[in-house]
Amino acid sequence: MELGEFIETMPLLDHHCHFLIKGDVEKREERLAQVSTEADNSYPLSDTKNRLAWWAFRAEAQYFARDKTNFLQSMDAKEYAAYNQLIFKHYNFKMLLVDTGFVPADAIIDLNEMKKITGLAVKKIYRIETHAQEWMEKEETFTQWWRQLSQQVAHAVEDGFVGFKSIAAYRFGLRLRKVGTAEAKKAFHGWKNSGVKRLSDPALISYIVWNLAPYIIAQNKPLQFHVGYGDADTDLFEGNPLLLRSFLQNWCPKGLKVVLLHCYPYHREAGYLASVFPNLFFDTSLIDPLGPSAVNRVLDEALELAPYSRYLFASDASTYPEMYGVAASRFKAALLHHFAHLSEVPLEQKKVWIRKICYQTAAELYIN
Amino acid sequence: MELGEFIETMPLLDHHCHFLIKGDVEKREERLAQVSTEADNSYPLSDTKNRLAWWAFRAEAQYFARDKTNFLQSMDAKEYAAYNQLIFKHYNFKMLLVDTGFVPADAIIDLNEMKKITGLAVKKIYRIETHAQEWMEKEETFTQWWRQLSQQVAHAVEDGFVGFKSIAAYRFGLRLRKVGTAEAKKAFHGWKNSGVKRLSDPALISYIVWNLAPYIIAQNKPLQFHVGYGDADTDLFEGNPLLLRSFLQNWCPKGLKVVLLHCYPYHREAGYLASVFPNLFFDTSLIDPLGPSAVNRVLDEALELAPYSRYLFASDASTYPEMYGVAASRFKAALLHHFAHLSEVPLEQKKVWIRKICYQTAAELYIN
Amino acid sequence: MELGEFIETMPLLDHHCHFLIKGDVEKREERLAQVSTEADNSYPLSDTKNRLAWWAFRAEAQYFARDKTNFLQSMDAKEYAAYNQLIFKHYNFKMLLVDTGFVPADAIIDLNEMKKITGLAVKKIYRIETHAQEWMEKEETFTQWWRQLSQQVAHAVEDGFVGFKSIAAYRFGLRLRKVGTAEAKKAFHGWKNSGVKRLSDPALISYIVWNLAPYIIAQNKPLQFHVGYGDADTDLFEGNPLLLRSFLQNWCPKGLKVVLLHCYPYHREAGYLASVFPNLFFDTSLIDPLGPSAVNRVLDEALELAPYSRYLFASDASTYPEMYGVAASRFKAALLHHFAHLSEVPLEQKKVWIRKICYQTAAELYIN
Repeated sequence: MELGEFIETMPLLDHHCHFLIKGDVEKREERLAQVSTEADNSYPLSDTKNRLAWWAFRAEAQYFARDKTNFLQSMDAKEYAAYNQLIFKHYNFKMLLVDTGFVPADAIIDLNEMKKITGLAVKKIYRIETHAQEWMEKEETFTQWWRQLSQQVAHAVEDGFVGFKSIAAYRFGLRLRKVGTAEAKKAFHGWKNSGVKRLSDPALISYIVWNLAPYIIAQNKPLQFHVGYGDADTDLFEGNPLLLRSFLQNWCPKGLKVVLLHCYPYHREAGYLASVFPNLFFDTSLIDPLGPSAVNRVLDEALELAPYSRYLFASDASTYPEMYGVAASRFKAALLHHFAHLSEVPLEQKKVWIRKICYQTAAELYIN
Repeated sequence: MELGEFIETMPLLDHHCHFLIKGDVEKREERLAQVSTEADNSYPLSDTKNRLAWWAFRAEAQYFARDKTNFLQSMDAKEYAAYNQLIFKHYNFKMLLVDTGFVPADAIIDLNEMKKITGLAVKKIYRIETHAQEWMEKEETFTQWWRQLSQQVAHAVEDGFVGFKSIAAYRFGLRLRKVGTAEAKKAFHGWKNSGVKRLSDPALISYIVWNLAPYIIAQNKPLQFHVGYGDADTDLFEGNPLLLRSFLQNWCPKGLKVVLLHCYPYHREAGYLASVFPNLFFDTSLIDPLGPSAVNRVLDEALELAPYSRYLFASDASTYPEMYGVAASRFKAALLHHFAHLSEVPLEQKKVWIRKICYQTAAELYIN
Repeated sequence: MELGEFIETMPLLDHHCHFLIKGDVEKREERLAQVSTEADNSYPLSDTKNRLAWWAFRAEAQYFARDKTNFLQSMDAKEYAAYNQLIFKHYNFKMLLVDTGFVPADAIIDLNEMKKITGLAVKKIYRIETHAQEWMEKEETFTQWWRQLSQQVAHAVEDGFVGFKSIAAYRFGLRLRKVGTAEAKKAFHGWKNSGVKRLSDPALISYIVWNLAPYIIAQNKPLQFHVGYGDADTDLFEGNPLLLRSFLQNWCPKGLKVVLLHCYPYHREAGYLASVFPNLFFDTSLIDPLGPSAVNRVLDEALELAPYSRYLFASDASTYPEMYGVAASRFKAALLHHFAHLSEVPLEQKKVWIRKICYQTAAELYIN
């Protein structure tokens, strides 16, 4: 089989994405436009529609719509399910791993319903900070809080989770450090007494992630980090994956599997890290659907140093199937562009690597 | 009209440039070479002439010269005006916004004269730090100084300015923060007593820019920041636009229109910021004339995430018309290269965006 | 002569590389794979073999092997010398400058033997931190230690060295600053008393490099810095060449010739620095052999602003001749790709620049 056809028919395991929303939501066009950007909803929609991503989402909707002239209207449940299945099947999606920590308005939060609508296997990822916040609200003391959180993490795989995620980069950045219990305890009580649910203390987040690592290793599932590109709430300067160095130096050799998500514009840095640290994986999700003109270039740059066995497909999509579709379409095109230009490598080896990138490595990491 | 012709004939509003110098200056070749680099004049001219920019400037001069074999000689006023008009007309420049804070030797500082020579509309930008320095020399107390500076800013549009510019990045970097009056007052007196005219205190610059923002909003004109690439005097590490985050978070939602200038090599970061913050615009000026082989790639990278309605043409040129010409030539070529490759978008939409980039967005920002 | 042939036949002066190892070492395939990555030997070999670099090294070995089916076996001394000479001659290598501070297992440390095996001129570079460590072990007091170290540096050229190298980036980063003798003395004794040979104190390294600069200027030889990409031991965030700013501002105008090595992923930053600081040179070694799919793009980006007279070829290769060969092959291809696309410049000028890049500038710097 030639390379183009091989890639087109390759199954996809989307190891990082979010909830779909319902098909009958009003203002589907507005919702689709809003999810074509990382800007929040106070950002002018007119500017959002002057982004290439909007035009790609729009074209994707039109391509798969039954009615090509009126293709941004709401759908009833049955039509929406068919529409979803059409898109996911077209790109050969097989499984979605859903970070359940982000819940868009009108989300379909029942994963069984998501399975039915998409026709795919769906599994869930445990977002650490969200759960830490929930336990803070329920528990009075540091000791009780930490027991609950750490025990929940220790049994997460039993509870159906296939991986873990930290959004430290959304709370203070990636300069995670080893923090002692006394400092963590003090930070916990400061937080608890602040009346603010949102966890943002650098010392406490460091403590949590650092000390949950053994429980994650014990279950042999990966720990994802939000890295780089995201909404205006992230401090992108502090989201540079190079800042994770002491965490990676400490935990990767001990067997912690770490997956850096998104990474743009630090995808070269992420590729470098994957090339020198054991157990380190990464993707360039989010730029695939939201920066369509970037995808060829970003994938090429990401793979300058990284082993092909350390790079994964993901969409980071949510809300509507068009976003997953645009991600898959641009990613597969970029794979073809990349591998078609490699003269050093025989076709069979290219196929081995493409399979790893599209689903095999993710399957081994999360579904083992 | 086809895309190539459309771009070629598109008018340009150069929203960030500097003074021309006189045509009869001796050593025109040396002056042209010196402005083909950001290095200062102690940098070896032989290395400057081993840069591609020099060869582009040289070719530009030859192309437009009457005498193709002797094309780097001085000109009398009449010949120089004709030469300028030939170049600016060739690229369809319509208006120049001049940052009057940088004055090259032998500059034509009378903007009316600049209008006559170029045949273009010319308007001026208020450089904050330069004026802050002038008022420091004239006023004894912090209160008087601040009253003079802030009142001058408050009436700048009446006085013919169409925008504002901060060169904080040339003085300490972009980590602007909210500073209280007591700290600013202390910093002012430290500066005043130092005997050094140059304003470089981070606290005082932060105070100035932060507290002038309301006056700028009130006049509905943009505030430009020098970002990234510049001469050896800028600390490029501290010129990363991501460091402006707290300033942008505070002021953009309140209506301050911010324009990030140059940005290279942080143009991806700037594009990201424009994609998530309201009222944030940027350009990739300076690399256009000074890095001719970079322009296609830099424009593509800048536009990976940014709305097409947030990106502007500018040259950052000065001294001789060749620099404006090389900037326009490479920028227009890069626009064609970028838009010719977009498959998602119909031709008419591309034209809408190209018009915005070349003059419409700048016209709305500065000339409204 | 056409550009392609001109580049192919251009001599190479490899101004930064390391020792070869013996040809009869067992497990030649494993050793070749290990040197195709910057990861240390605890990194999984299976991942290393999923990198493009391995496939390029492998193809290089096969291309030059006598036995095309069994091309990764050990060789006896005679066959190994012939094999080396075949490869170095193929790419027209003329001279190697060896950083003797890194010694792989089974290295051929006798430079005369290296000359014989390669058929090339071989000269040596003085690695500052390594020698500082040796003198620390021998001397009791700061004063004695500094006298020995500084005198050795002062006479290094007499002793056959043609340049100097600092690996500050491997020890704490590139934020070199001016440090007083009292602080340095204290740091020296802290180090001496620690029982750890490895020099990593930022103040002491700063002191050493800053205060050896005059001795290096006096001998008119360059000082190399490790910058950017390297093994997991370097903190890549702190290896950004922009952080060298105060050192460069102080020493380059005084005549210190500085060469930034590797630079990836900060090669644009390095190119910018070379464009504004006198006496500043750089290369993009290491990415040439270890990131074959990157080389065209990295070379293009490195040369966006830099003078062609400030950029040098180097391989950073070690261990086996294939690594030097892959570096040369990819670098020459990238040169052709870059210069073939420059429309502003006549062929003769391109040849002048290519000659400078391949050997002339390095010859003037090191062999003057």
